Amino acid sequence: EIWSTPPPMNTNIRVSLPAVCFVWQIAMIILFGVFIRYNEESDVRKWIEFKHSHNITSDIENDFYFRYPSFQDVHVMIFVGFGFLMTFLKRYSFSGVGFNFLIAAFGLQWALLMQGWFHSLDPNTGKIYIGVENLINADFCVAGSLIAYGALLGKVSPVQLMVVTLFGVTLFAVEEYIILDLLHCRDAGGSMVIHAFGGYYGLAISWVLYRPNLHQSKRLNGSVYHSDVFAMIGTLFLWMFWPSFNSAITAHGDGQHRAVINTYLALASSVLTAVAISSMSQKRGKLDMVHIQNATLAGGVAMGTAAEFMITPYGSLIVGFCCGIISTFGYVFVTPFLEKYFKIQDTCGIHNLHAVPGMLGGFVGAIVAAAASVEVYGREGLIETFAFEGDFATRSVLTQGGYQAAGTCVAITFGLVGGALVGFILKFPIWGDPADDNCYDDEVYWEVREQRSNSILQERNNIFDTKVLCHSCIATFTHDTFV
Amino acid sequence: EIWSTPPPMNTNIRVSLPAVCFVWQIAMIILFGVFIRYNEESDVRKWIEFKHSHNITSDIENDFYFRYPSFQDVHVMIFVGFGFLMTFLKRYSFSGVGFNFLIAAFGLQWALLMQGWFHSLDPNTGKIYIGVENLINADFCVAGSLIAYGALLGKVSPVQLMVVTLFGVTLFAVEEYIILDLLHCRDAGGSMVIHAFGGYYGLAISWVLYRPNLHQSKRLNGSVYHSDVFAMIGTLFLWMFWPSFNSAITAHGDGQHRAVINTYLALASSVLTAVAISSMSQKRGKLDMVHIQNATLAGGVAMGTAAEFMITPYGSLIVGFCCGIISTFGYVFVTPFLEKYFKIQDTCGIHNLHAVPGMLGGFVGAIVAAAASVEVYGREGLIETFAFEGDFATRSVLTQGGYQAAGTCVAITFGLVGGALVGFILKFPIWGDPADDNCYDDEVYWEVREQRSNSILQERNNIFDTKVLCHSCIATFTHDTFV
Amino acid sequence: EIWSTPPPMNTNIRVSLPAVCFVWQIAMIILFGVFIRYNEESDVRKWIEFKHSHNITSDIENDFYFRYPSFQDVHVMIFVGFGFLMTFLKRYSFSGVGFNFLIAAFGLQWALLMQGWFHSLDPNTGKIYIGVENLINADFCVAGSLIAYGALLGKVSPVQLMVVTLFGVTLFAVEEYIILDLLHCRDAGGSMVIHAFGGYYGLAISWVLYRPNLHQSKRLNGSVYHSDVFAMIGTLFLWMFWPSFNSAITAHGDGQHRAVINTYLALASSVLTAVAISSMSQKRGKLDMVHIQNATLAGGVAMGTAAEFMITPYGSLIVGFCCGIISTFGYVFVTPFLEKYFKIQDTCGIHNLHAVPGMLGGFVGAIVAAAASVEVYGREGLIETFAFEGDFATRSVLTQGGYQAAGTCVAITFGLVGGALVGFILKFPIWGDPADDNCYDDEVYWEVREQRSNSILQERNNIFDTKVLCHSCIATFTHDTFV
Repeated sequence: EIWSTPPPMNTNIRVSLPAVCFVWQIAMIILFGVFIRYNEESDVRKWIEFKHSHNITSDIENDFYFRYPSFQDVHVMIFVGFGFLMTFLKRYSFSGVGFNFLIAAFGLQWALLMQGWFHSLDPNTGKIYIGVENLINADFCVAGSLIAYGALLGKVSPVQLMVVTLFGVTLFAVEEYIILDLLHCRDAGGSMVIHAFGGYYGLAISWVLYRPNLHQSKRLNGSVYHSDVFAMIGTLFLWMFWPSFNSAITAHGDGQHRAVINTYLALASSVLTAVAISSMSQKRGKLDMVHIQNATLAGGVAMGTAAEFMITPYGSLIVGFCCGIISTFGYVFVTPFLEKYFKIQDTCGIHNLHAVPGMLGGFVGAIVAAAASVEVYGREGLIETFAFEGDFATRSVLTQGGYQAAGTCVAITFGLVGGALVGFILKFPIWGDPADDNCYDDEVYWEVREQRSNSILQERNNIFDTKVLCHSCIATFTHDTFV
Repeated sequence: EIWSTPPPMNTNIRVSLPAVCFVWQIAMIILFGVFIRYNEESDVRKWIEFKHSHNITSDIENDFYFRYPSFQDVHVMIFVGFGFLMTFLKRYSFSGVGFNFLIAAFGLQWALLMQGWFHSLDPNTGKIYIGVENLINADFCVAGSLIAYGALLGKVSPVQLMVVTLFGVTLFAVEEYIILDLLHCRDAGGSMVIHAFGGYYGLAISWVLYRPNLHQSKRLNGSVYHSDVFAMIGTLFLWMFWPSFNSAITAHGDGQHRAVINTYLALASSVLTAVAISSMSQKRGKLDMVHIQNATLAGGVAMGTAAEFMITPYGSLIVGFCCGIISTFGYVFVTPFLEKYFKIQDTCGIHNLHAVPGMLGGFVGAIVAAAASVEVYGREGLIETFAFEGDFATRSVLTQGGYQAAGTCVAITFGLVGGALVGFILKFPIWGDPADDNCYDDEVYWEVREQRSNSILQERNNIFDTKVLCHSCIATFTHDTFV
Repeated sequence: EIWSTPPPMNTNIRVSLPAVCFVWQIAMIILFGVFIRYNEESDVRKWIEFKHSHNITSDIENDFYFRYPSFQDVHVMIFVGFGFLMTFLKRYSFSGVGFNFLIAAFGLQWALLMQGWFHSLDPNTGKIYIGVENLINADFCVAGSLIAYGALLGKVSPVQLMVVTLFGVTLFAVEEYIILDLLHCRDAGGSMVIHAFGGYYGLAISWVLYRPNLHQSKRLNGSVYHSDVFAMIGTLFLWMFWPSFNSAITAHGDGQHRAVINTYLALASSVLTAVAISSMSQKRGKLDMVHIQNATLAGGVAMGTAAEFMITPYGSLIVGFCCGIISTFGYVFVTPFLEKYFKIQDTCGIHNLHAVPGMLGGFVGAIVAAAASVEVYGREGLIETFAFEGDFATRSVLTQGGYQAAGTCVAITFGLVGGALVGFILKFPIWGDPADDNCYDDEVYWEVREQRSNSILQERNNIFDTKVLCHSCIATFTHDTFV
């Protein structure tokens, strides 16, 4: 039977991967040389002038001190959080954490340029001036593509992932420009622009790349004991630092403070309901690691838009409560359903952790924005929170709510359409993706020195050795006895 | 012999665990709706008013920027530190990190309410106003119950752990109110209110729940190579961030600064003496991972009260020096002694890491407070450090020292009496706890997909296979030769 | 053959290790008692006076709030970053993370004293006044010795490591004094004083301690699957927090801000080129975990000097680009070459990650300093960035560049000469180092409870069991049939 399978696909990436890395990195150097400069808070000359002209007496007023601790927490989420969450497969941990590392480092440079061109290009000088907030936004932008990787985990080559990231970052910058600048939505923690977009982007790619014979790799599509513990490192760093994620670029002072409280509460609440549904869904009430690793985070995703609003502490608890339930239900029922009836193979279940909670978060944000009042926010606070200034000075909160809902739809549309297009690009047979019986296997793209101990192969070898030994000792025996 | 054991206990928690989670979370939503509001630094309207009324010109004065980095470090200690420290058992890592996650998320909500009612209920409005300091205190409050979990690790069900946490948080809030408000003790890092209380609380519960036949699970009460490495993740994050723990709620400026220096030094010192005693206690001077994982942290526990005082850098080194020795001695001699003669089964050795160093830390704090002088602190500094204001304006440092010592005794008493009571509640046969021969085993409460490779069972199977093979090949041989 | 090897060396450290720990820690307590005091920002009395005398109205001006988040990131790099990076060996993870922990805690106390005597001894009082910046510098100082440990990993005893650290910290403080104070170099992130020094220090020690028969431990000098995943924890925390490392002690405001941006970009760039070269160097383009774990960090090392300068964002990308290539080439070609022709056994390849990128970083810093101009920095900015004050008020940027280059040479010289001397000290047969066939094995210095499953021994046993079974069943068979 093993001989009847087609010859293995060409997974040799010795030319394509280095070529993409080098070409891309050289392009980045040139584009950075042309466009990127320090901003007035990171350039020594400008900061001295800025302090003089703004009567600033202390360096502590530099935005660095408002945002750097949050930036580092976000950075940990991107590299350790996403990376280790994807180490749960028994023989795909190298790729989970390693390719996440590669595409994040690759994407954040492109994100600085794309977001710079759309948001902070100085029309006079033609330069993009960057500071710590740009670094946070670049990390955010990359998160969309890392989410998409979650659906594709184990089924694509690193070169394909770089294509996913290249287009993912590009699409992100455009949809973000439409949502935040043109529609003037608020989305500090990215329920819409990061999670809904990234989730549907990954699902659409996965739909196009559907593999009908993926069951041939079924033996590797699962965890072992310690790989599940590794994944908990990712889960916990995501869970702990999500308050920093949702508050990293909100308004100084009360804005960051409130976003942290709201996210902290929503996350706590979704742990309780994720555990409850996980226990109910299994015989004898046993918990499933997949649910604990993922659904406990749904509250953070769903608070991405509303965290900076006056949603109230109990409102945050309610959001976490509902999303913990919905997300766990998704893992139990929807993911198998999507695979069976919609031909979507979603390795990490991003549908349940990012796509749906992100979409819900967008609509929660719309409702909370529409319900805002001068009584609660104060007149000045309302203007500050929703940036009702300039062209948008006369917008009502109800209109704002409508635009927030529209923004969510834009994000989903960009994800679905963009993902489908990128999926078709990835179908060209030039990217070195693995064969169906070779998925979820690090040995395709990594030097794995160790023998696969405890694997089926190993056991087969043991049995083989035993047989040989038996035969040889019997042979000896017969020879000794009868000859 | 295996047939003579009683039928396995009912560990089915498919009703009880979801029921507790849902009832509790709904109760939290209702109580938060009634009581919890943003405070003047996290509410957009109030913060704008606060800035106007207090002539604050910069958002950097928001308490958020003084405390958020420390909060996140404490958060990491609670979830990754405590969680991964408890992954050291060979087949209980899921429960170690997973149940820690569950009960911390569960307890911190209740802590916000309990501590709010006792400490920050506004008598005019009947509301509790929360900000980042409340989040830190909620994490602290939960730590008491997580410490207790350390003694119970492997022997209780998640439902029992939620009972432990519910009562633990309640008792904590009461003893904290007595110690900090009524006795007016200082205990910023919680040697007394967190560690001494939590340690004795867990030991008392463990004493009531004594299992005379626990040796039936002996095969699982130990580590494997990689589970010990996982536990080091917990150890190191606790060790590194303990300076943030002890400084998170101390006075702005010099208070936080000094608490960090003192804790950093005490921790460094206890590493050296823990290593020394560990090496001395084993043949050929080999180190024991249990000591390195735990006793190295004793200096941080013992500085919980005195860290904010002017204990001097060398004073901190001395505290760490002594506690590293005492704690390691505890692991070598006292834990086996307690089990044999006091019927206390203390899985993680919290007696040596929390109970005793916490108690010592309380007394160190008493001595350092009693020795405080105007010469060292300055008059203003003395008032600031010990909050000699209002009703306590005339208290002498000597009296303060006496009250600090009394506070330590209150914490221990609350732990022992409260723990005994909670232990009796946990003896009801309704909580789904495991049988004696089923302890320390994740498979009781978790879906564990993987076979236990390398286990005795596996090895038995191998031998069995070999036998079958031998017999079959010999059968073949005899058939071929003789028939 | 196994009987012809000499009797195993005496690795009993039951006297020497505790003795060194106790003597050392007691000496530290005495010296701290004599010399170390809180500085004016961590002493309650002095801080109140300092605020009055400097017209400071807010505690946020305390240096604590400028530097503490960066300090904690550096702390994580030292203990988790370096520690877990060294867990990659299959049976040396305890020692990798555990001895790193021990010598860092040991060294940082000595560093506070040594650096204090050289840099911040108050000539009037004879005291060293410490604050958060001293803690950062102590962590930095220890890093030099931890780098050296990377070359020695698996081949030395913990007592030897304490000797390495004792002399390493001492040499560090002297070379740092020469480079920063006498030559007036700038080296905020320590390309020269930390990485070049530490790298060559470790290589020189390793050269003296050359073991011609180290191949006897070859079976243990490699990774297993999960030990490589553990090492990625170290890699990622180093990679993520390197911007904090290079900015931790730079100037407030724009200095810290710019150092973060530059380091972030250089690191991202070196990931891409490290991946490219790794893929090119293996058949079928497979990636090598050793390269991903190490060479991706080269950009951070190489930006240690120039990060605070106006190197420009694209300049940072170029530095990362080149160092990612050079470092990966080093792992592929230079490390085997050094072992074969120069008798240098460099377990972690510190030559490629620290020595060479550190040296290059020193020269990059020299070039960027020499190219500084009033046009770019402004007059005030130039003085601020290069501290052209006091004795150095008239120094030109070109001269500064020359001194920077000279400083790099001083660091390398100190590393090579100091390392050779320390190496000879370590050759005395009193330190309990392991025999050649016992290297890379935790069981020499740690109680390892678990049997080595999956090891060669285990496999031999299996085969042996099978043989016995075969013989016995055949014996049974012959007895049954013929008797």
